[in-house]
Amino acid sequence: MAVIYNRVALIGLGLIASSMAHAMRWKGLAGEIVGHAQSEASRATALEIGICDRVFATAAEAVQGADLVVLCVPVGAMEAIASEIAPHLAPGATVTDVGSVKQAVIDAVAPHIPAGVHFIPGHPLAGTEHSGPRSGFATLFVNRWWLLTPMPEGDEAATARLRSLLEGMGANVDLMDAPHHDLVLAVVSHTPHLIAYTMVGVADHLRRVSQSEVIKYSASGFRDFTRIAASDPVMWRDVFLTNREATLDILGRFTEELFVLQRAIRMGDGPQLQEYFTRTRAIRRGIIEAGQDTAAADFGRGTPPPPAADASVDPKA
Amino acid sequence: MAVIYNRVALIGLGLIASSMAHAMRWKGLAGEIVGHAQSEASRATALEIGICDRVFATAAEAVQGADLVVLCVPVGAMEAIASEIAPHLAPGATVTDVGSVKQAVIDAVAPHIPAGVHFIPGHPLAGTEHSGPRSGFATLFVNRWWLLTPMPEGDEAATARLRSLLEGMGANVDLMDAPHHDLVLAVVSHTPHLIAYTMVGVADHLRRVSQSEVIKYSASGFRDFTRIAASDPVMWRDVFLTNREATLDILGRFTEELFVLQRAIRMGDGPQLQEYFTRTRAIRRGIIEAGQDTAAADFGRGTPPPPAADASVDPKA
Repeated sequence: MAVIYNRVALIGLGLIASSMAHAMRWKGLAGEIVGHAQSEASRATALEIGICDRVFATAAEAVQGADLVVLCVPVGAMEAIASEIAPHLAPGATVTDVGSVKQAVIDAVAPHIPAGVHFIPGHPLAGTEHSGPRSGFATLFVNRWWLLTPMPEGDEAATARLRSLLEGMGANVDLMDAPHHDLVLAVVSHTPHLIAYTMVGVADHLRRVSQSEVIKYSASGFRDFTRIAASDPVMWRDVFLTNREATLDILGRFTEELFVLQRAIRMGDGPQLQEYFTRTRAIRRGIIEAGQDTAAADFGRGTPPPPAADASVDPKA
Repeated sequence: MAVIYNRVALIGLGLIASSMAHAMRWKGLAGEIVGHAQSEASRATALEIGICDRVFATAAEAVQGADLVVLCVPVGAMEAIASEIAPHLAPGATVTDVGSVKQAVIDAVAPHIPAGVHFIPGHPLAGTEHSGPRSGFATLFVNRWWLLTPMPEGDEAATARLRSLLEGMGANVDLMDAPHHDLVLAVVSHTPHLIAYTMVGVADHLRRVSQSEVIKYSASGFRDFTRIAASDPVMWRDVFLTNREATLDILGRFTEELFVLQRAIRMGDGPQLQEYFTRTRAIRRGIIEAGQDTAAADFGRGTPPPPAADASVDPKA
């Protein structure tokens, strides 16, 4: 695949930035990859593992001469970074970001972008519960959605060029407006995360069930919640602070609905519970058919290889 | 490994029963495996795929001559089955069950068990979102907990014998009393499942975000919820109906806690959110250290093999 940007500047060197670097190198999409992280340790790691060719102590230095700048910092840090880099952006450069909320990023970044520079907000729907420059891997974006919310007056050629980079890394790209993005994400990601954090917090507080038992017997429901609730705290703090209205809206609907089910439990209304649980199965089937997850049982968690023909093999050995 | 029971009768032929059958055959733990399911199709499947040597149209016939009877039906069906099989149980036989709630099963089953038969309630903390006789696999219980809640006056030798079967299938066995079991499970499994069902239901109702978008963009938080919410509706209906008090107790705590976080979002209290999200990370680390989950990023979901050395390979090809 051909080089799409001659110099890509990654601002912030966490999971998404390091995965982008691996993916761009794998596919030969970037001539040079430079980076900036606040922490000296992260910058040193980025050089050591080779995700950046050069690193800089300031974002202002890192963006100089870059034809693509990717803001990979928590949403709450976007405005300060945009203000810092603005005077140093090359004419014709593209600036994008990977924030989980889009209207707040537009409000924070767009006013700082000089004429002649293209700002195209973006959000890859990909991630793991790990963070830091060592957490990235080249295939993170393969077959995952990368949503772009271009400005109404945006340059179409610049968007097409960015899109070809994202597709080159294996992502599927869709365009939508920022408020709709924020509502969709409140449903499929932000509210579920808040709920998972809450459930794990409840377990943590409980005195009658000791924490060691919660950990020891964590069955599938709770185990999945703890994985979700292990995501980066600063990133998620900023998500809820900046997508406040949509999250509170969906949370309100969630609480209403929970009270309905809670009442059904209290009243012993079996048919209502069964009907509800039957309907939710259909959505799961849709997700598997859409290729966004696997139907494989238990995702192979902790499962040893298939039984050997020799029945004397002890799986615990 | 030696045969531990000469004839095992599986009553109900779903995920757990079929996995037990595969595991017992793999390890040679049972002389003969017989079974009963209400549905004729399930009985035919059980014979076809070989999980049962013989099947019976009634539970009463199936248990005759068995030295181990395993009740693998929804908790709400336990009493009727216990009443039906009671006159047909062999002297000295052991009856166990795999229900997710234990006090309700004891209340339903124990009064029917004749003198000279050992009733040892049990619950394997293992499962997938799939059901039916074809969903089982031999390694489902490997390195998973199997909790037993023996009756106070129970026979220790019978419990030790059952334990050796469960350990033979790869499970780790712990003993506790039934009320404590039900509280622990309300925290680590029942309440998380109800919450996941609720969140998926909310998404299903939303009109502004179309269902196709919810499915298309299902990010990790919601995707995990839909997997949980795809579990067997009848089984879960019975769980909530029979572990009502503990579930309502934990739900009440959950709602309180959720309101605290909701208020923090509304008030824009960043430090409180960040502090909360930081604490929940610790529980996750504990679970990984306890070997109940893997730290592997994204569980390999939809992730292709590692990048080839040939950079021209297109992962979407």
